[in-house]
This record gives sequence, structure tokens and C-alpha cells, in this order.
Amino acid sequence: MNLRRFATFALITLIGCTTPPSATVPTEATVNAISTLDAAFDAEAQRKLEQQFDSYLNSENLRDWMKHMSSRPHHVGSPWSKQNAEFAAAKFKEWGYEAKVEQFDVLLPIPKVRVLEMVAPEKFAATLKEPVLEEDASSGLREDLLPGYNAFSADGDVTAELVYVNYGIPGDYEVLERHGIDVEGKIVIARYGGSWRGIKPKVAYEKGAIGCIIYSDPRDDGFFRGDVYPKGPYRMAHGVQRGSVVDMPMYPGDPLTPGYGAVDGAERLDIEDAPTIMKIPVLPISYADAQPLLEAMEGPVAPDHWKGALPITYHIGPGPAKVHLRLEFEWKLRTAYNPVGRMEGSEFPDEWIMRGNHHDGWAFGAADPISGMVSLMEEARAIGELAKTGWRPKRTIIYAGWDAEEPGLLGSTEWVEHHKKELDEKMVVYINTDGTTRGFLGVGGSHTLEKFVNEVRSEVKDPLVNVSLQDRLRARIRVDGNKYAEREDIPIGALGSGSDYTAFIHHVGISSLNMGMSGEAGGGSYHSIYDTFDHYTRFMDPDFVYGVTLSKATGRTTLRLADATVLPFRFTNFVDHVKVYVDQLKEMAKKVKEETERTNRLIEKNAYSLSAHPDRQYVPPVKLGSVPDFDFSPVDNAVSRLRTSAEKYEMALTKSVTENGRPAGATARNLNQILMKVERAMTRDDGLPRRPWFKHMIYAPGFYTGYGVKTLPGIREGLEQRKWEEVNLFVGEVAAVLNRVADEVDGASLLLK
Amino acid sequence: MNLRRFATFALITLIGCTTPPSATVPTEATVNAISTLDAAFDAEAQRKLEQQFDSYLNSENLRDWMKHMSSRPHHVGSPWSKQNAEFAAAKFKEWGYEAKVEQFDVLLPIPKVRVLEMVAPEKFAATLKEPVLEEDASSGLREDLLPGYNAFSADGDVTAELVYVNYGIPGDYEVLERHGIDVEGKIVIARYGGSWRGIKPKVAYEKGAIGCIIYSDPRDDGFFRGDVYPKGPYRMAHGVQRGSVVDMPMYPGDPLTPGYGAVDGAERLDIEDAPTIMKIPVLPISYADAQPLLEAMEGPVAPDHWKGALPITYHIGPGPAKVHLRLEFEWKLRTAYNPVGRMEGSEFPDEWIMRGNHHDGWAFGAADPISGMVSLMEEARAIGELAKTGWRPKRTIIYAGWDAEEPGLLGSTEWVEHHKKELDEKMVVYINTDGTTRGFLGVGGSHTLEKFVNEVRSEVKDPLVNVSLQDRLRARIRVDGNKYAEREDIPIGALGSGSDYTAFIHHVGISSLNMGMSGEAGGGSYHSIYDTFDHYTRFMDPDFVYGVTLSKATGRTTLRLADATVLPFRFTNFVDHVKVYVDQLKEMAKKVKEETERTNRLIEKNAYSLSAHPDRQYVPPVKLGSVPDFDFSPVDNAVSRLRTSAEKYEMALTKSVTENGRPAGATARNLNQILMKVERAMTRDDGLPRRPWFKHMIYAPGFYTGYGVKTLPGIREGLEQRKWEEVNLFVGEVAAVLNRVADEVDGASLLLK
Repeated sequence: MNLRRFATFALITLIGCTTPPSATVPTEATVNAISTLDAAFDAEAQRKLEQQFDSYLNSENLRDWMKHMSSRPHHVGSPWSKQNAEFAAAKFKEWGYEAKVEQFDVLLPIPKVRVLEMVAPEKFAATLKEPVLEEDASSGLREDLLPGYNAFSADGDVTAELVYVNYGIPGDYEVLERHGIDVEGKIVIARYGGSWRGIKPKVAYEKGAIGCIIYSDPRDDGFFRGDVYPKGPYRMAHGVQRGSVVDMPMYPGDPLTPGYGAVDGAERLDIEDAPTIMKIPVLPISYADAQPLLEAMEGPVAPDHWKGALPITYHIGPGPAKVHLRLEFEWKLRTAYNPVGRMEGSEFPDEWIMRGNHHDGWAFGAADPISGMVSLMEEARAIGELAKTGWRPKRTIIYAGWDAEEPGLLGSTEWVEHHKKELDEKMVVYINTDGTTRGFLGVGGSHTLEKFVNEVRSEVKDPLVNVSLQDRLRARIRVDGNKYAEREDIPIGALGSGSDYTAFIHHVGISSLNMGMSGEAGGGSYHSIYDTFDHYTRFMDPDFVYGVTLSKATGRTTLRLADATVLPFRFTNFVDHVKVYVDQLKEMAKKVKEETERTNRLIEKNAYSLSAHPDRQYVPPVKLGSVPDFDFSPVDNAVSRLRTSAEKYEMALTKSVTENGRPAGATARNLNQILMKVERAMTRDDGLPRRPWFKHMIYAPGFYTGYGVKTLPGIREGLEQRKWEEVNLFVGEVAAVLNRVADEVDGASLLLK
Repeated sequence: MNLRRFATFALITLIGCTTPPSATVPTEATVNAISTLDAAFDAEAQRKLEQQFDSYLNSENLRDWMKHMSSRPHHVGSPWSKQNAEFAAAKFKEWGYEAKVEQFDVLLPIPKVRVLEMVAPEKFAATLKEPVLEEDASSGLREDLLPGYNAFSADGDVTAELVYVNYGIPGDYEVLERHGIDVEGKIVIARYGGSWRGIKPKVAYEKGAIGCIIYSDPRDDGFFRGDVYPKGPYRMAHGVQRGSVVDMPMYPGDPLTPGYGAVDGAERLDIEDAPTIMKIPVLPISYADAQPLLEAMEGPVAPDHWKGALPITYHIGPGPAKVHLRLEFEWKLRTAYNPVGRMEGSEFPDEWIMRGNHHDGWAFGAADPISGMVSLMEEARAIGELAKTGWRPKRTIIYAGWDAEEPGLLGSTEWVEHHKKELDEKMVVYINTDGTTRGFLGVGGSHTLEKFVNEVRSEVKDPLVNVSLQDRLRARIRVDGNKYAEREDIPIGALGSGSDYTAFIHHVGISSLNMGMSGEAGGGSYHSIYDTFDHYTRFMDPDFVYGVTLSKATGRTTLRLADATVLPFRFTNFVDHVKVYVDQLKEMAKKVKEETERTNRLIEKNAYSLSAHPDRQYVPPVKLGSVPDFDFSPVDNAVSRLRTSAEKYEMALTKSVTENGRPAGATARNLNQILMKVERAMTRDDGLPRRPWFKHMIYAPGFYTGYGVKTLPGIREGLEQRKWEEVNLFVGEVAAVLNRVADEVDGASLLLK
């Protein structure tokens, strides 16, 4: 589901530079800290095991399984989704796992009627079709194929003038306001990008629009980026991006069963009461279909940063282009099949390491998600091979294939909600993958695992360039001029949403990682019928060498977590990041205040009106309420305290291992019990404002970004949305969370005395 | 000729924010300084005179004259150019000026053969034609019309593969190098923009290319910006930008007579020896003609910032697109006609205030240059009306219409070179205008006149918004967040090149101003056959109210300079700017050093190669020579000294006028003689490296930007071109110049004691 994976975006998505760690001066504690490998293992023995693991990996398996699993459409509810689930479960079993397929009955609307036509100033009927390509065998298969649509759009039959709203995010509506244009009673047309797609109809509805069209502009996703399919990998004129618009930032998963599993007999909301279902009809279209609509618009010329790559002058409207949009869906429960394979831990069966990747796709879904799924399966198979040699993991390892991720993370969310109590007790780390291509190993996740991940990345070689993934990524960020290029640990990104880690980390507070290869394959097949085996093997990772490389990285991650004497959580990296977030928020508070004062001053001086074009409509901004000064000292103090605790822990661990050897017995057990639950201490039972399902106080997907992370979200979104009382409330809550984390870490240190 | 005038570019071009003054704390001297008006006039009487001047202005005249003068093509050598020159001279005479038409015989090549065809992978013949439009009466007139071409291209007949070089400026070739692509023996295709057009073939030739095609990309100049002609003002698919590519940054004017007037009997270089004529054939084409060529290219996909708005994937090449370019010109001397009107000064006939605007155009030239020319003529007429009432200017006022500006500032440059000695003695200020539209009053020029210009701008009202031009511009830069928005004097831009002030300021060191209205009219007719009366009166300044407003501003500028008791030069503003330039250069020196070290470090770490895409050609940069530390203390000291001198002068003047009244007699005469020549002290006889014609040490057009200014050019270009010995040399030269200026200013202060 994660779009960024399929494009050659800047490395920023790989290393999470949007939230870089402060370049803290290394202290004695961090410089001399024992590695996570040495604290947990006889390094030589572990490396030998991992080499053995590597030796079992075979890229031909990835190819064969992808060919099979992507040979038919396999969205939730389709026959091939069930087949794939059973296929994976059978494989797990064959490889020595206890395997089953867990089922949930979840809502998925499927289109019955899709009409989009321009009724004025000219007639034009959108084709809403993706053509068959000779060069792509799959593109001709139509059985079970879902057409282009946005899952959880409302039913609707509306006719109105169009307004072009750029990406359709809140800032875009400010531009419209300055032009004196409102969307009340209108249908908006937004381009994909700038946020997760579900934000667009949500904001449009909040602003009074009665319908929403989303199209893929070739500037962001088409010929502007590179040659289009089948010549190149990019989106061709008729390619449509399907996708869910369910209000995931409120809660993901089945809209009818918020917070609990959608099992047989579960209480279900009425569809009309489900708050995450959109209230207006929404339809995604191709740029071939969008061009006539946009070309027929008049009104002000769009600002430069609103303009796409179609060969037209972009106008905002409203109208005169007027469209008729009619959508009707079959609203039905469908069965989601989650294949789960389990290898019980020999020493700590109630400490679980879990790997997951979804298996459902919008159409053939070769890249998204099968590329990640087959890499996960090959990892599982190789671990099965290891087990055949007599090795057993100390902790329980679980592999899952999630169904119904595409419509809104339904398979994983229902599973997490259903097993919540047990997961809260037993889950150590959840490691997610999703579609994967070629390039660099990008990691997002809990910063308590940042040091660990950096060590893992240093152990795996790039398949084409003869250095480790870590060295290659470092070379890249050096060239990019990233200011943390020389930091010992390359920053990992914070997790927002967009894949199946969401319920684990945000709802239950389970330490999570999201890993994948990206950055060196162009992509434009995302959620179209052209995400096929043919496309993948021509453009993404033709020889599956990067897929196998991912297996090496995730396999090491799984193996080390499963067998570690001391779990590889470290807290100084985490504090580095939190400190940066706090600094950002202080800066932001200052900026909001300054910008507010500036705007009000310009209004007083009449500068907006005087500088506006005398012949054009212009509505100056209105005066804003003043911004209070915030007291960040509670978080500042908590950060300081946590840094002390984090350093104390690293010193205690280093000293303990160096002097007494790796912990064992009850000490190790108790220590790991503390470590694995530190992330839980980052949650708040009441969750975030207006979305109590999201309980993590350090990371959340943005309420108005959808996928994009907001760190310290209570404070940050309070500032963004000018809810000053929430800022103050969450300064306290974040401080409390950090203090709880410090308590836990202090407890861990104490055990090592 | 000045492209920026015709587009709604950011205000940066209006206020010269590329070189903003330091936000110096106002000192006693500057805060209490007497205004240039009060130091020079009985303010009330002068304002009354100016109101009287205003009352004579009539926008109908501008309309009538534009209609007449733009009714036929009027490039140098055409019958209508001569007619317009005689028309203007006759008007000058009618209005009471001594008038004549001064002639120079200058080289202008005119095309005999123009062929551009793609010979592989498909056949395509470029149309090289601008179609007739029903909506534009002029567009159907073909008599005397020059086709699309670049003046001073070489003759040539070449066939080669194409390489797309983006804007074709030096930085773009670094990108090509990284891709392992060189243009040796190739034909480059560059888009307009990023520099003055003549830079593109010059750099292409330096890099070994054998031909150059320049096209207007719709991203910069076409439908991307707004609706195209005739629906809107922007460039339509077949519109071609003509223009000169003579190497003006070496020297402008007639290529055969560098440094002296192209009069009868003047010694002339052989054409093949003229260093400013391009060595390869160059042809400008429309985007309609460019698209098939660009579409046929392969090779690496261009970087994002190289991509334009054509609906294609931009590739760099080389080839497979292969083109045949054949150009032949008729190389002939043509007569340039400069109408000049002179009103002798009653008190100081040997102190000259000059106004100029060119009258030649590439085709019908309504906006460029007739819009400015008719504003100048109306100003001249109104001053003639004043003279009929008995008023006479104290100083001599001269109005000129320059011919042959378009091929390379030939009319004005030859005139300046021919009259150099007299101008050096007598010229006080040259005030230039060129094409003008609507919006804000933009000014570039000598910063010794910045305070004066700000005062003038405060006296003239915007015709549509009921505040002064100064207040409106200030509102605009406030909204834009310009950091100098609250500075008492809004910064004026430094002069590079692109219009007829060039020879005055850069060759002779005459204080100059360049003024025009812009910023609120979209433009895409520039140098095409669609720059017509119809286009201008629909989109540019339909009622000529901004044209008349410009007359008010330039008229006041002329009147105040002509009659001032004390010429309105002030030096604290000038020092503000020089200080900023020096700070910029120090910053730049630091950055060049840091970047050099960074690049070399990355090379040592092999970061470029490791991070490159393993399947793509990539050539890492090579190690750079180290950058010395520069000693800027000579300029620092000179700046400090000049600031003291400048403040002393303002205090002395303020005190003198306040206590003794405005200076008179010999004191005033001697004072003004010093003031009018301060700018001469900014020149160096030997000029700049590799272009001794350019003698000004504070401002110059960039050797690799063409129009864009380089301040403290000797130092700045030394840093840019890594010529460290030149940096050191010009640190000394600039310090010397500033000390000479300080000497002059001290001399002025002394007179007031």
C-alpha cells in the first residue's frame, strides 16, 4: 500500500530525515557501549548461523511464487486471495511451522455502477478503463478484476461544477479562500499526492463539496517522471490508482468493528453509523480521463505549485466544466484470510517475534504486495531449513500474510484487535514488509531499535555493489549532503501509517519495524492493473536479487531478536530523536506565533489588499487569534531525565557483560520482560484527541496527512490546528510517557547491578 | 529586449533582492538626513511644477503613437525603423527640442536560408513559421518581416545527433559530465531561460558542439504559465523568440567597431575576426517545432529540474534524434537611426540629463519597445509644454530613441562610444526605459540614486489603486516577506545588461537608472510576431494608464535632476549595498572552500561511485584544486572608510542647507561637478578580465549570465571561475575604487564646510 516504495523518491523516505536526530556529542556511554550483537551473542557463532541461513536462500523461489500468486486478481474476497492464503499456509506447514488460516469477516464495498461524464461546456464520458497491453500478459485477464475505484467512497449521484483543488489538503483551501472560491455544493478534482488519498475527500467534505474526483497527474505519477509503461515503468495515460479512502487516521481496520476483531458474531455498527466511511462519492481516474475535464475549466490560473504536467493551462474554476458522478457499491462482508505460521520458541515460547506482509492486492499486485510476501516466505523457508538442522529459536517466531490490507489494513488490524490481550503480554517486536523493489534498505520503526537495525544493515551486502547495505546507504546520504551522514547510526524513519505495522505500534504499543528495498526502480504501476509479474521482472528487481537481499536483512533481524540473550533495545538513540521532535515543536510554536503576528500586522497595514492585482478577485486573510507562550519545561525535564536513564542503562549493560558475561537465568528473563514492554509505556489509554484508537504518544499518522507521520502528535497537531489547550495537555502527557519510559529503563539498569 | 519585463516574475526583479542592502542600523546621519527634494528645491514649488507636468499627459497619445509605430516591422535597416526615427525626431522638434537623427552603419546579418530537419530516427521538417491569427490584425502582415532567427549566429550546415542541455549554462554541463555525456561534435538543444540566450551557444561552442537550437519551453514561456495567445497573453505553440546571440558580455554594440563609433570611415574588423560573433549556427524555434525532436530522444531521463512542460518524457540523449541544421545569412551593414531631441539647459548647459528608449523591434514590437518609447515621447511632449509656459530646465535635457538595440544594443553603444569624451565630461545621469506593462514601478540603477528614486516613487500614484507607487510596492514586498520591507528606502536592483543603459554605466561610468512598470501582466509575445498593438491593448496596459504613470515617474526623475540645486546623489545607500556584496563574497569564498573540501572528501570515500545506480552510466567528479584563504581586509577597510565619508556628506549637506539655505553659485556648481562624476571613480581603465570594454568595478553583466548582474564582478567571477589570482587582484582594485569614491565624497563635504 505504501506508494513511496515504488518511486525513486529522495532518500529522505529511507532514513526519515524529516525527523533527524540531534547531532548530540557522543558521550562515554554511547561511544563505548557494547554492540547489540555482542551483548546478546557469541558473535562468531551467530554470524555463522546467519551465513548458513543465507545459503538456503534462492531467488528462483521468489520468482516462481510471485508468478503464481500474482497470476490472478487477489483482493480480499476474491477466490485467488483465498488461494494465496492457503498456498502460503501450506508452505509454512511444509517448512515446519504450525500453520493455520485465521478468518475475519470484514466490510468491502465493490462497485456496481461507475459513471463520470462531463455535461458542460462539452459532453465527455470518462472511459474509466485500463487497456490491454500486448507487452503484458496479465493486463488482458479480466476475471475477478476490480475496476478503478476508491474503497469506502459513499454511494452517490451528483452533478455540479468542478473546482480544481490541487492535492486537496487543508493548505490548498487557503489558496482557494484568497481567490474567493469555495467548494460548497461543488465537485472537487484533486490530484494524487501531497497526502494519503483519503485526506482529499475528507477535507472536501468538511468544506462542503458533494463529490470528489482524484486523478494521477503525470507530473507526480506519469510521463514527467520517466517513460511510461510498457516502454518504461511509469504510469501510462490510462493507468488508474485504486485505493482506500476509509478514514484510517481515525481508526484503520474494519469500519464496522472499531477496536475489536471482526469475528463471527461480533457486534457490528450499521454502515451508515461507521464514522470512517466517506460521506461523499469519490472516484479515481487516469490522466487521460482527467485532461478533458481540466482543459474545460476556467477561472483563475492555478498557482505554479498547483500545476501538473498535462499540456494545458491549469485553471481553478469553479466550472464551467460541470460533471455528473454516479457511484453505487455492493456493500457486503467478505472473508479475509490471514495465513499464520508459528515456530514455538525453545526457551521463551511466550515471547513472540512476528513478521508480516500483506498478500492481498488491488489487481495482480506483483510489486504490491507479492514482492514483499515472497521475500518473507523465502525467509520463513530458510529458517525452516535451519530448524531441520536441529537449531530452534529461543523465542517464538510467527509469520503472517495479511489479507485486506489494501482497503484499510483490515486483516492485520482485526487480527491485532482480536488478539490484543495476548499480544500486549507476549509480542516483543513486529517486523513488517510490504512491496519491495531495488536500491537501498530503508527502515522505519521504533527508535529503541535504531542501533540494532544499523548493525543488521552492516552485515548484509548489496547484491550488485560490493559493499554492505549500510555502507552504500551511507555513501548515498553523504552525497545527498544529509547532515547526519557521519552519525554512527544512520537515522531510521518514524512510523506513520500505510502498512500493517499500524495496529501493532499505534494501537497496542508494540515495538515495530518496517523494512524494504527502494530508491533505484521507477514505478508507476501502483494500484493499477499493470502491477504485474511482467512489469516487476522488467523494471523492479528482474533477478529478485534485492528481494533475496531483503530476506537476508529481515532474516537476521528475526533471528537475532528470536535468540538474543539480551534483547537489542537501546534508548540513547530514542532520546536523540525525541529531543529533535521537542526542538522542532518549540521552533514551530515560535513560528506559529510569529506568522500569526505577521499576518495580523499585514492586515492592519492593509498590505494584502494594496498588493493584490486590481483586476482580480482577492479576499485577504482575516485576523487570527493570538498565540500563547507554551511551557515546554515538563518535556524538557523528562527528556533530560530519560537521557540520563538511557546512558545509565548502556553503561550498566556494557559493564555487566564485560565483567560478568552475558546475563542469564532470571536476570536475563526479567531484563527482557522489561525491555520488550518499554514501548507500551509510550501509550496513553485515552489515545489522541478525536481518535482514541491511536494510543502512541510519540508517533502517529497525521490526521491530515494520513500516511505521513506526526511525531509527538498531540502537541504537534494541537499547534497545527491552533488548539492551544491540547498543546498544553499533551506537553503533560508526553512528559508523563517519557517519565514512565525512564522508570522502565531505570528498572532494567537496576537488574544489571 | 528585457525579457523579465514581460512576465509576471517575482518582485525580486523589481527591487533587486538578489543583492539586498544590509539592514544597517540607521545612524544619526541617515535618520536626520535632509531629503533630496528639500536639499535641491523649494519643495512646494517643485511639486506644483510636477502637477502641471502631469496635467499635460494624455494616454490617447500613447495609444495613437503605438498604433502608428507598431503598424509595420521596424528592425534596424527596415523602412519602418527609419520612418519611426524620423517620426520621433519630428515630434521632438514640434515640441520645442533641437532634433536630429544620428546615424551609424552597423552590421546586421539577416537570414537567407533556414533549414532544420530531423533526419533520424524519423523525418521531420521544422515549420519555422508563426501562423496568422484572425484575432490579431498585425499577424498577417509579412512585408519586411524578419523570420525567427538569432542575430549573429554563424553561417553553417551541420548534421549531428542532438543532446538536450537544459538551459545550456555551465552548471548544466556538469550534470552531463556526471552522466558521461559530452557534446563534442553534437548539436545541442537548449530551452530559453536560466541566462541570457547568447550564453547558450557560447558555452555549447566552448564544449565542442557544432550547432545550437534554442526553443521556448512552455514551462517557462507558454501554456504552463497561463492561457496562450489569442485566448490569453502567453506564448502559443508556434511563437518563436527571436533575439541576438552576439557575445554582449564581452562587448555590446557593433561587432566590427569595438570601443568606437560605427560612423562613416571608421575602421572595421573583418567579420571573421569579430570576437563577439558566434562560431556555430544557432536557431530559435517554437515548442511546436521542438516537441518532435525532444520526443525522439533517448538516453538518460533528464533530472527533474531540467524537465519542461511538454507532454513527453525529457531525455538527454545523445540522439538517436539526429538533425540537419543549415543557416545562411546576408552579412551587411545597415543604417541605425537614432532620433535625438535636445533642450538646452538655462544655467548648466554642459550638465546633461538624458532619457532613452529604443525604438527598433524584432517584428511589430508594440510592447518591446514601443510601449516604453511612447511613454518617453509623452514625457518629452509634456516637458515641451512646460517650456512653452516660460519654464526652462537648468540643465540640458536630451531625449533619444535608440535604433538597433535588439541585435545587441548597437544604436546606443555606438552613440556612447562616438560621443564618449563629451559624455564623460557632461553626462550627469542616463535614465533608460524599455518595454513597459502594468503593475509595480521597478527600478534598477546606481545605488547613489536609490534614495532619490524612492522619493520620486512616493510622489506618483498608482492609477488603479489609490496609493503611491511606493506604498503599493512596499505592500507587495511586505506580503512577500522581503526582509527589507521595512527599510526606509526600498532597495533598487543593480544593473547587469539587457537594455541601453549598458554602455553608459558599464563603459563610461555614468550614473544610470532603468525604470519600468511590470508584474501584473502575463506575457508571451516577447520577440515574436505577436508582440502587436492588439496583444498589448488586450493584455498589457489596455488603457495606457500605467504607461502614463511611468511618464509621471520618469518625468519627475528628469525634471528634478535637470533643476536640482544640489544633485540628488547620496552615498550611504550605496555603501549599504557594497557592504552586502562584500559579505556575500566572503560567504561565497567560504562556501567554495567548503564545497571543494566536501567534494574531495566524498571522492576519497568513494561515496559518489558507491551511491550511483549500479546499472546506469555514471562518471564521478574529479578532485578539485584547493581553495586559498582570501584576505578581504582591503575592501573591508575601504567600505568602512566610505561609510564614514558618506555619513559625513549627508550630515554636512543637512547642516549646510538647514543653517545656510541651499548652496548656490560656485559652491553649488563645484559640488555638482563632483557629485555627477562619482560614478566615474568606480571604473578601472583596464576593465574586467577578458573584457576590457567593461570598466565598472561594482556592477557588470555576468560573463556566463549575460543579462544577470554580477556585483563586484572581478572578485565574484574570480571565485566562480576558480581564478584565485583574479580574486586577489580585484580585492585590491575594488578597494582602490572605493577609496577614490571616498576621496570624491570627502571633497564634496569639504565644499559644504
